[in-house]
Amino acid sequence: MSLNTFGRAFRFTTWGESHGPALGVVIDGCPPGVLLKAEDIQSALDRRKPGGSKFVTQRKEPDAVKILSGIFEDDRTEGPRTTGAPISLMIENVDQRSKDYADIRDKYRPGHADFTYDAKYGFRDYRGGGRSSARETAARVAAGAVAEKALGVLLPDPVWIRACLVQMGPHKIDRANFDWAQIDKNPFWCPDAEAAALWEEKLDAARKAGSSMGAVIEVVAAGVPAGLGAPVYGKLDADLASAMMSINAAKAVEIGAGMEAAALSGEENADEIRIRNGAPHFLSNKAGGVLGGISTGQELVVRFAVKPTSSILTPRRTITRGGEETEIQTKGRHDPCVGIRGVPVGAAMMALVLADHAMLHRGNVGDGHLKQRN
Amino acid sequence: MSLNTFGRAFRFTTWGESHGPALGVVIDGCPPGVLLKAEDIQSALDRRKPGGSKFVTQRKEPDAVKILSGIFEDDRTEGPRTTGAPISLMIENVDQRSKDYADIRDKYRPGHADFTYDAKYGFRDYRGGGRSSARETAARVAAGAVAEKALGVLLPDPVWIRACLVQMGPHKIDRANFDWAQIDKNPFWCPDAEAAALWEEKLDAARKAGSSMGAVIEVVAAGVPAGLGAPVYGKLDADLASAMMSINAAKAVEIGAGMEAAALSGEENADEIRIRNGAPHFLSNKAGGVLGGISTGQELVVRFAVKPTSSILTPRRTITRGGEETEIQTKGRHDPCVGIRGVPVGAAMMALVLADHAMLHRGNVGDGHLKQRN
Amino acid sequence: MSLNTFGRAFRFTTWGESHGPALGVVIDGCPPGVLLKAEDIQSALDRRKPGGSKFVTQRKEPDAVKILSGIFEDDRTEGPRTTGAPISLMIENVDQRSKDYADIRDKYRPGHADFTYDAKYGFRDYRGGGRSSARETAARVAAGAVAEKALGVLLPDPVWIRACLVQMGPHKIDRANFDWAQIDKNPFWCPDAEAAALWEEKLDAARKAGSSMGAVIEVVAAGVPAGLGAPVYGKLDADLASAMMSINAAKAVEIGAGMEAAALSGEENADEIRIRNGAPHFLSNKAGGVLGGISTGQELVVRFAVKPTSSILTPRRTITRGGEETEIQTKGRHDPCVGIRGVPVGAAMMALVLADHAMLHRGNVGDGHLKQRN
Amino acid sequence: MSLNTFGRAFRFTTWGESHGPALGVVIDGCPPGVLLKAEDIQSALDRRKPGGSKFVTQRKEPDAVKILSGIFEDDRTEGPRTTGAPISLMIENVDQRSKDYADIRDKYRPGHADFTYDAKYGFRDYRGGGRSSARETAARVAAGAVAEKALGVLLPDPVWIRACLVQMGPHKIDRANFDWAQIDKNPFWCPDAEAAALWEEKLDAARKAGSSMGAVIEVVAAGVPAGLGAPVYGKLDADLASAMMSINAAKAVEIGAGMEAAALSGEENADEIRIRNGAPHFLSNKAGGVLGGISTGQELVVRFAVKPTSSILTPRRTITRGGEETEIQTKGRHDPCVGIRGVPVGAAMMALVLADHAMLHRGNVGDGHLKQRN
Repeated sequence: MSLNTFGRAFRFTTWGESHGPALGVVIDGCPPGVLLKAEDIQSALDRRKPGGSKFVTQRKEPDAVKILSGIFEDDRTEGPRTTGAPISLMIENVDQRSKDYADIRDKYRPGHADFTYDAKYGFRDYRGGGRSSARETAARVAAGAVAEKALGVLLPDPVWIRACLVQMGPHKIDRANFDWAQIDKNPFWCPDAEAAALWEEKLDAARKAGSSMGAVIEVVAAGVPAGLGAPVYGKLDADLASAMMSINAAKAVEIGAGMEAAALSGEENADEIRIRNGAPHFLSNKAGGVLGGISTGQELVVRFAVKPTSSILTPRRTITRGGEETEIQTKGRHDPCVGIRGVPVGAAMMALVLADHAMLHRGNVGDGHLKQRN
Repeated sequence: MSLNTFGRAFRFTTWGESHGPALGVVIDGCPPGVLLKAEDIQSALDRRKPGGSKFVTQRKEPDAVKILSGIFEDDRTEGPRTTGAPISLMIENVDQRSKDYADIRDKYRPGHADFTYDAKYGFRDYRGGGRSSARETAARVAAGAVAEKALGVLLPDPVWIRACLVQMGPHKIDRANFDWAQIDKNPFWCPDAEAAALWEEKLDAARKAGSSMGAVIEVVAAGVPAGLGAPVYGKLDADLASAMMSINAAKAVEIGAGMEAAALSGEENADEIRIRNGAPHFLSNKAGGVLGGISTGQELVVRFAVKPTSSILTPRRTITRGGEETEIQTKGRHDPCVGIRGVPVGAAMMALVLADHAMLHRGNVGDGHLKQRN
Repeated sequence: MSLNTFGRAFRFTTWGESHGPALGVVIDGCPPGVLLKAEDIQSALDRRKPGGSKFVTQRKEPDAVKILSGIFEDDRTEGPRTTGAPISLMIENVDQRSKDYADIRDKYRPGHADFTYDAKYGFRDYRGGGRSSARETAARVAAGAVAEKALGVLLPDPVWIRACLVQMGPHKIDRANFDWAQIDKNPFWCPDAEAAALWEEKLDAARKAGSSMGAVIEVVAAGVPAGLGAPVYGKLDADLASAMMSINAAKAVEIGAGMEAAALSGEENADEIRIRNGAPHFLSNKAGGVLGGISTGQELVVRFAVKPTSSILTPRRTITRGGEETEIQTKGRHDPCVGIRGVPVGAAMMALVLADHAMLHRGNVGDGHLKQRN
Repeated sequence: MSLNTFGRAFRFTTWGESHGPALGVVIDGCPPGVLLKAEDIQSALDRRKPGGSKFVTQRKEPDAVKILSGIFEDDRTEGPRTTGAPISLMIENVDQRSKDYADIRDKYRPGHADFTYDAKYGFRDYRGGGRSSARETAARVAAGAVAEKALGVLLPDPVWIRACLVQMGPHKIDRANFDWAQIDKNPFWCPDAEAAALWEEKLDAARKAGSSMGAVIEVVAAGVPAGLGAPVYGKLDADLASAMMSINAAKAVEIGAGMEAAALSGEENADEIRIRNGAPHFLSNKAGGVLGGISTGQELVVRFAVKPTSSILTPRRTITRGGEETEIQTKGRHDPCVGIRGVPVGAAMMALVLADHAMLHRGNVGDGHLKQRN
């Protein structure tokens, strides 16, 4: 229940299908007093927007966002501010290509949710994947932009959230080359200029061969104070795992050392603590910024693996809705590596999880009577 | 907000600390009519119980469970059956060793939640880790045993949930040797007899060296029908990721191909479908039994990595509560590889997630008026 | 906290302010396969629409609803059907009169939420009451129309939900005159033609005197099967109490005999049961169709009292935002008796609570594999 | 769907049946640092305890509470303090009289939940009403005592919660005689000494006649700051309505003027505001301390009506489980007026609702890093 909602205190509910008139999100629990304009959200959406290079879908969507509720401006507010009421954001769909869906309406595309949606609902909107389409992530990115603004009010220090691609197909970056400044200089959000050059070649080859590639995304948050999170089932890392695994095509989530943690020695893992600049400093941060489900004040480091795009030109064997064996070839405008667009989505989910845990700490700010005593 | 509760429809809330008088769980949402005896739960707890070999903590806990509510028996019921009311289970703590906690009360053990609990709450029960202790997982295993019984009522076919260790430290099993029959024949739940022999040697060496080892656990559920799960934020795999990452010391979760999915080609990933024995059959099951957040009817395959035990004899540098730099050596009765006890816990979490999604499908069974029309 | 969300399994979240660009609702948890057109919702909205008579606000709002997601139609579906995905409904605001809000921006209107919103948020959208405006109930009525359609799929027999005004100011209807056929024949949804005539006179006098009147609304649901509801904190009557008390200006909720139940004798209250037409029949239904939080299969009877409209022309003493004593006179287009528009809202909330409990029983219908075994 | 849980941020889950081994409650969300001893809870339970006079059930239950988790004491804490972990409370059942339940196992007692539990679950624990028994309210009173202690930490000023009986059967108190000091001087928590004398006579007569009486309980909270609550579906009054209606035998809930609000004139209702002692003062408090779902800082006033005890000696016509018409006479140890024990239960629910909303405001106190900036 509340299956299209994420979060406990800073909650958002997304709605919309790939080929419906619009998609959107309602955010319930944003604190009052946050300065918020449509442009703040638009710039985040523009980073995710399809149509930017030959490595993402050629569907042209302006992804223009409208704020329908939850903000108010008068001559005393220095711009529109959130009021504490639900914030409703809407993005109209423009470029739903009128195509013939006869092929996928009766056949299940391998790797897609066609079969499982039919198994669950007995009925599905097959146009462009309907609700299971990655277009839903536009709503997450919009919500994430609001969360990032809210963090500015909720936390004592600025939080800096960044994401990048650290692996495409089998090709990992060289950590020695890691440079955040590189991520805007190639179409892959790749922090290693050499790897980016190789990836361009490999991905182009895969695209031309009617194939696709997977990827690993890394999301890092700096400036998160120690003490965010909760024990047992509200763990910050458990929430991050759920958040990242809910992204289309994700198949694994790692915190800190991740799968490699299993191979560490006890001494390597028991990360030593010193005082640096007057604050606790963890020497290795193998834990990725979380211990016992609660933030340590070190960098929060999360990675998730995304499988290759399931829509490929190479024909695949499958079955029909009626249970007949058949074959399918998925044409259309598809990303050869959906992981690329996963980068802004991963960053958005990080902001949303942090805003939720920040709200769990503070309750509603803006409260007149109570705040003095907090 | 319900930070010690897991699940939406089959919900459970655990309580208790390592050194309190007892620990337990309340299950709310179990369907009525499930035959349930304390022995059903006890046998699951016995599998997790500490004190079984030199590779797990030497703390001796009988872990005897009491059912305090939610079942009823009369001469018409063939044994106690659940009534639909909350099921309260309690396990008394017996072997809390009366030791001097002066060392850890003022020093933060590296790799543990000592520092973060203080950062969050400003105050903590330091005896044996308090609420962050792995003793909490006894309550999960007890709840998991109830979930497994409930699945017998909720799903059309029997579900078979098994778990094993597929990696200890850097040493992986050889998949060619995989044999479920082996897991009860060694102290590691290892399905590869050769690997088990090597692990015994390696873990003994680590233990004697005052170190510890990590592990990777694999949990498999067979017999799950297609159609369990939900879109977007209630995805079966997102819930499994949250469930497994909430287990003490977990640092990564994989579904199906997991991290390796990033390196697959588009063709390998787009798992072809055929009809076998009249039902859809996926040729590779790289997806691990989930597409679009909903089960495919194939085996559900989840893995999680557990870091090495943080309590090690080797001295480590750390800080005190007051912010002084110091050193700590963790004595006491600790598992050299906590991953071993993660095996029954992982299986329990799988059962609990499945029971939750099965309830989301069915609503409350046992309903007289409505069930005919379902 | 989901403070703008109602329901557990059939959940809806409303958004929007009185003077924002639009208002709306997202429904999450509607079963798939329900035939749903905008007209189904529009006809419910038209019953609530302001501007219908001199006894409701003169604000002219077409309240035209758009369905933005969650339905799908192709040549096999006999019209648009719900898919199980979230249903997003939007109603644009048209007649926000551009007036000077200087008066209420700095003064608190007695009986309104102006003071409390400022106390909570420190900041408020004062245009027409912002989020606290009764315009929010348009979103409830729209959601209620969807709930009513869903009940047709969820329950075995048709459910007939009706509501009426049984008291205006101090003037109650005569139960001997009760006739459902009357409610569409007067502007008050009054089931007693004689009372309606009196009310017209009294309300007109109050309006002209710059005053306003309260009312009591009765909502009845027939055809609800026995067995809907839940024990303790998920009681059907507790949910109805919360639902009705959440309606603007509501100050009391009664189930069955309500406040009068306190004055019954034990014999009158212990409602005798007989078999009639093969089904249990309760002779008095003093319980109003609920025992122990679960429906009895008899008519479900709920009443709620609504206070007089707080916006009145008669000047009232109040304070300013800055804490100065002052006076205020509320001009503008206000209902002399907001209770009248509470009638369709109460009926909508009844449908929404029933749909929620019906879903709790059934889980997701439309599931292919599981339904045979339910 | 957490049907045995109440609250959003300060949540509690009760468990246990009338004739099971024990009953209890788990509180999740209590802030850390609250001084809490078993005696604090015990004294609240003693006020509710059966066996106190001839006007309540003669069942003798010590209702001795044990705190099983969530508190910690060392030489620095001045007594046991809450840690932020779940607080588990248990009360063992002692005096379950071993009687023959043959009569009620197959017959439905009118006014009780026997029939509806069978309709819902198809199966029920009929011993003493099982889960539907008023014994569950002992767990609420225990939780309420914790909530009251938590309010001392959560709110700026002391909150004073009191409850009394203002009507028994048709006999109301005289408001002119209202004196809180009277409530401990009679067995009815009656604030009017004259009314108490009359009630004693009337209730004794009803008891001897094999009948029972209903009652109206009033709960008042003073010292609640303005700004607690939330808009729309998280309204303070909607939560109070749900809380009070969830109490066994409750049939109506009123806030402030309640049902009488319908009969007020617009001027009477639009409660004027002045400044008194530097704070806003509402002249009539007809609103009962809530406007727009948020507290006004005035006294919070709630009433609920409780129907007469359904278990009466006078024989009543009913049906059997098998659908046969029959008759039943309920013997056993029953309260002639269950409303009397509703007084401490109503006060407990008030404390629990307030603690929940206070937590929604504050988030987790005790947080080291963040609190300075709140």
